[in-house]
Amino acid sequence: MIVVMKPNATAEMVQAMVKRVEEMGLKAHVIVGEERTVIAAAGVKRDGHQAELESCDEVEKIVPIIASYKVASKETKPEPTVVQIRDLKIGGSHVGVIAGPCSVESEEQILQVARQVKAAGATGLRGGAFKPRTSPYSFQGMKEEGLKLLALAREETGLAVVTEVMTPEHVDMLCQYADVLQIGARNMQNYHLLQAVGETRTPVLLKRGPSASIEEFLLAAEYILDQGNQQVMLCERGVRTFETHTRFTLPLATVPYLHERTHLPVVIDPSHGTGIASLVPPMCAAAIAAGCDGLILEVHPDPSRAMSDGAQSLTPEVFADTMETCRKVAAAIGKELG
Amino acid sequence: MIVVMKPNATAEMVQAMVKRVEEMGLKAHVIVGEERTVIAAAGVKRDGHQAELESCDEVEKIVPIIASYKVASKETKPEPTVVQIRDLKIGGSHVGVIAGPCSVESEEQILQVARQVKAAGATGLRGGAFKPRTSPYSFQGMKEEGLKLLALAREETGLAVVTEVMTPEHVDMLCQYADVLQIGARNMQNYHLLQAVGETRTPVLLKRGPSASIEEFLLAAEYILDQGNQQVMLCERGVRTFETHTRFTLPLATVPYLHERTHLPVVIDPSHGTGIASLVPPMCAAAIAAGCDGLILEVHPDPSRAMSDGAQSLTPEVFADTMETCRKVAAAIGKELG
Amino acid sequence: MIVVMKPNATAEMVQAMVKRVEEMGLKAHVIVGEERTVIAAAGVKRDGHQAELESCDEVEKIVPIIASYKVASKETKPEPTVVQIRDLKIGGSHVGVIAGPCSVESEEQILQVARQVKAAGATGLRGGAFKPRTSPYSFQGMKEEGLKLLALAREETGLAVVTEVMTPEHVDMLCQYADVLQIGARNMQNYHLLQAVGETRTPVLLKRGPSASIEEFLLAAEYILDQGNQQVMLCERGVRTFETHTRFTLPLATVPYLHERTHLPVVIDPSHGTGIASLVPPMCAAAIAAGCDGLILEVHPDPSRAMSDGAQSLTPEVFADTMETCRKVAAAIGKELG
Amino acid sequence: MIVVMKPNATAEMVQAMVKRVEEMGLKAHVIVGEERTVIAAAGVKRDGHQAELESCDEVEKIVPIIASYKVASKETKPEPTVVQIRDLKIGGSHVGVIAGPCSVESEEQILQVARQVKAAGATGLRGGAFKPRTSPYSFQGMKEEGLKLLALAREETGLAVVTEVMTPEHVDMLCQYADVLQIGARNMQNYHLLQAVGETRTPVLLKRGPSASIEEFLLAAEYILDQGNQQVMLCERGVRTFETHTRFTLPLATVPYLHERTHLPVVIDPSHGTGIASLVPPMCAAAIAAGCDGLILEVHPDPSRAMSDGAQSLTPEVFADTMETCRKVAAAIGKELG
Repeated sequence: MIVVMKPNATAEMVQAMVKRVEEMGLKAHVIVGEERTVIAAAGVKRDGHQAELESCDEVEKIVPIIASYKVASKETKPEPTVVQIRDLKIGGSHVGVIAGPCSVESEEQILQVARQVKAAGATGLRGGAFKPRTSPYSFQGMKEEGLKLLALAREETGLAVVTEVMTPEHVDMLCQYADVLQIGARNMQNYHLLQAVGETRTPVLLKRGPSASIEEFLLAAEYILDQGNQQVMLCERGVRTFETHTRFTLPLATVPYLHERTHLPVVIDPSHGTGIASLVPPMCAAAIAAGCDGLILEVHPDPSRAMSDGAQSLTPEVFADTMETCRKVAAAIGKELG
Repeated sequence: MIVVMKPNATAEMVQAMVKRVEEMGLKAHVIVGEERTVIAAAGVKRDGHQAELESCDEVEKIVPIIASYKVASKETKPEPTVVQIRDLKIGGSHVGVIAGPCSVESEEQILQVARQVKAAGATGLRGGAFKPRTSPYSFQGMKEEGLKLLALAREETGLAVVTEVMTPEHVDMLCQYADVLQIGARNMQNYHLLQAVGETRTPVLLKRGPSASIEEFLLAAEYILDQGNQQVMLCERGVRTFETHTRFTLPLATVPYLHERTHLPVVIDPSHGTGIASLVPPMCAAAIAAGCDGLILEVHPDPSRAMSDGAQSLTPEVFADTMETCRKVAAAIGKELG
Repeated sequence: MIVVMKPNATAEMVQAMVKRVEEMGLKAHVIVGEERTVIAAAGVKRDGHQAELESCDEVEKIVPIIASYKVASKETKPEPTVVQIRDLKIGGSHVGVIAGPCSVESEEQILQVARQVKAAGATGLRGGAFKPRTSPYSFQGMKEEGLKLLALAREETGLAVVTEVMTPEHVDMLCQYADVLQIGARNMQNYHLLQAVGETRTPVLLKRGPSASIEEFLLAAEYILDQGNQQVMLCERGVRTFETHTRFTLPLATVPYLHERTHLPVVIDPSHGTGIASLVPPMCAAAIAAGCDGLILEVHPDPSRAMSDGAQSLTPEVFADTMETCRKVAAAIGKELG
Repeated sequence: MIVVMKPNATAEMVQAMVKRVEEMGLKAHVIVGEERTVIAAAGVKRDGHQAELESCDEVEKIVPIIASYKVASKETKPEPTVVQIRDLKIGGSHVGVIAGPCSVESEEQILQVARQVKAAGATGLRGGAFKPRTSPYSFQGMKEEGLKLLALAREETGLAVVTEVMTPEHVDMLCQYADVLQIGARNMQNYHLLQAVGETRTPVLLKRGPSASIEEFLLAAEYILDQGNQQVMLCERGVRTFETHTRFTLPLATVPYLHERTHLPVVIDPSHGTGIASLVPPMCAAAIAAGCDGLILEVHPDPSRAMSDGAQSLTPEVFADTMETCRKVAAAIGKELG
């Protein structure tokens, strides 16, 4: 960490700061510049060191040098993590596709869409049973009944079931039905929930919060990894910006940026990332070209009758066409879809 | 709600849409404009109506007319809600001040700071016992031990205790020690937690998420109100924007904007809103001039030794001076501090 | 436009508003809903109508129905505009590639890089002669001398020259040397400059401002089109958000979104959009998969010696590899590169 | 500047980098940490040094230590700059108030409003004659005719005239009529315009661009100062964020933050900062409490008939009340209004 002293800092202040840094067990190097003196503090930092120095009057700012995530870091594990459950394979040269409705609505609906997405090449089935909704007056999902229907659809199609868990006390129940536990964007920093899924050995799909920095995102993953669950997928689903023509702004540069820093696979959600069905197919192709390891998509047999997120859901026909294009784009960059 | 048809919508499409709107139990009014036909749908909407119409091909967009929060709305209850616990009074012509350290660190620390903020005029004591931290490797708080120290400080000073609850299973325990339950910004949309505090009758300080819209903020409050707990305070603590020179961007226009829409009191947190101690005093004065009902501030006996948030904590001396100025500003707009 | 009355608006207020709308030459339709009365105003609006009604006390808000850009709109001209200058072809099934250094630095540099990008398949040459720089103390470009070198490079390679114009008084001079006039992001709403390039018949590459909405972007293009210059290319180069790990956030959904609304071609700038050379190749592939009509890229013979933007410039070797991948991705979606 | 090497950088790479830094005329200090080696480069940097090192493969990042603005810096001139023209006094213990319509619309309108704002205590008169408008089809101002009316209003009332200049070729003409040249937010980085007003000795009100960082804002001021014009006022008028309930997000922490860094006075524009007339009075009070040196406000004799910005304009009556409150708030913090 680099301690930048204020321009008017005296030699005494600099000496006092050096002493303080050394009391922390760190090695201090003083560099006197034209306009500022900086002190480089080398060694193993403890939590709080930065904040402590930052609040000293004679310090202008502290510049941290090293990222604070460890287990998620590529420096810890250079080879990419591949998550595989049933036929769903996310990571390496495989681009896995998870598709299905926003919410499980009925046995007929979920079985129908499961067959349709399977036929088009998906290997994972998404579907919400516990739904986090902005308004308390909105449909909150079919709950455990919905989970049973997802398990039924898995039985028939073999698709891996991906569904959201909203609170620590549901984790055990969810693990009985789901192949992948999804942590929604609203819960990215719900640390008790992260620790609870970290204690299981069920793979986790962790969605980025709409205003989370990449470091916060990786540190949220770190909460799960730190409990021993290594099967974590990072999901970019769009960030909140001044743009209102799309539901969120989908920054695909997240894909190569994360690949440079972490071994965890990166999944893209163009349905939430755009909020508009007609923009989803080109953004699926773009996500694959950017190098993503998986897609998660909303598909509904009749989007205009969906109980939630209809505006961003693909019809099964459009989904099948999209898969066709995506397969070609994946091949163009040397990868395989599904 | 207003249904805007696409420019190429035929008369048949318009008729089909009118039929659909009427099937929803709504009254349809067709308005043929120069370039678009719009259909105004009047009546009581059900959840899902908007999404259903939005996903029809011939519809360009849906424009909702009415806000979706009800109990929080000033239309439901025009007179302002005043929250009073012990000497802490938030709302009406009173500006309550809650001050204290980011984290409870020791008996000595919390008692000392409680006495100091009480002496300067605070009526509430803040202090974290369960700390949500971005990194799993950071200090996570003294937990129940910290709660006991807060209760001890209350016993000695009479200050109302405000502390954060992070997960539904802790709500009962927290209620034994706290006068106000704080929901942190990261948990603003942790709906199980909102419902759990809604089931208590302990007042709640709900912090705005860093990228939450005002409507999402009020709907989060609605989750609490809907469970029967009417003692909800809204806390603006800054939003995440492109600005990096401050920790967050603190939008004080939130205060009068909320006052026009909701009866719930509005508290400002300039410590998190700026992240820089030297900016806190002027922003306290500004928040009061903007009409806020309360302040929540970080004060630490020795900020440079704080275990968290030292850079944004005031010393007790600066806090006392700030209170002095705030008292004058409150008087200038006809309000009373403390 | 839809006039939403406040909940407490009386019948008299509604009548007065209807009268006012009719005085504007518009037809008023009153729709009485459960909680609000709205008045739909149909007919040809004049500038100022919306603002006028918006500021009436009894009005809650005005909802405009129709976009304000006309000439840029697909409704005005459904078939896509293709811009062609020399071998550079942007639009339709062609993806044109404009490459070159941030700044023209010397004859040797610009000739060398022109040959290299030409060899790899580019058909346009970028290079700044007049450089808008954040600091007045930074290198401001070689000015007219730089333009002459660009013309020389064109003579040798046949590449179309794309270069930035910063002020109206330079437009004539620039037109003597350039094939395409670039309007930089900082000048997207420099209306005198837009009008000045609109008066020429030289094609224009208009960069989106870092916080411009899509409507503002299209209205800036409208300033050019309105002067009679129909050869306008829209360039997305990233928007400013809370993300700091990339220089800007590059929202590729802009591509299909614009294609649904305007006939103008869309060019992507992944160099500025990311600011990091290693992220540029995957974002080029992603931009093409998203359906863009062109790319503009920074390439420098020795990025570490570049006088500006070195960190985001590709080496000629990486550029050639990138073109190779992009060619395959373009083919995968039925398009042709170059 | 601090050069952070990649974790896998070898001793040879570090040595090569030291050599390179020394070739730049800088002194290199190598600090070997637990996980990274960093090189502190002390001495006078030239433009391009940072970019050059940043683009070297073995470098992870460059951390600049010193701000790049000089003349605007408080380190260059510690005492605050006070701008005084006629009775308008901005800076020091005076809070100047500039009020008037968005656009000059007629002799009657501008004279009436000038008298009204003067009576309420304003010392500056704003009014647009050349109007930058998002759409080419909107009213573009009365141009020179408008300037003459402003001069007439000044003659009658003695108010200092503040009006916008949009292009370098208008600067001379504007100087004949205006006391203060306003640079609008859209033109904050129109460098030719900044230089042109920098060559005059007429005071300049420079508005912050809606997504400009504080450093970019100060460097824009630096373009003016660098030409010799020292009379620059910085105007915060709101930034563009995800918030849509207000026109922009008005970050008042800008005021004390700028005061810590620059001697230039800071003016707040709550009209554009909120876009909603009812939010303007509390934000005026808040801006003064935050320590601003001036206010610029839109006031119109009949906002609902304004040709632009009616929704955010105060009536003369509300303006007079607002001044009353502001006077008290200014007194509460030891300042004087007007």
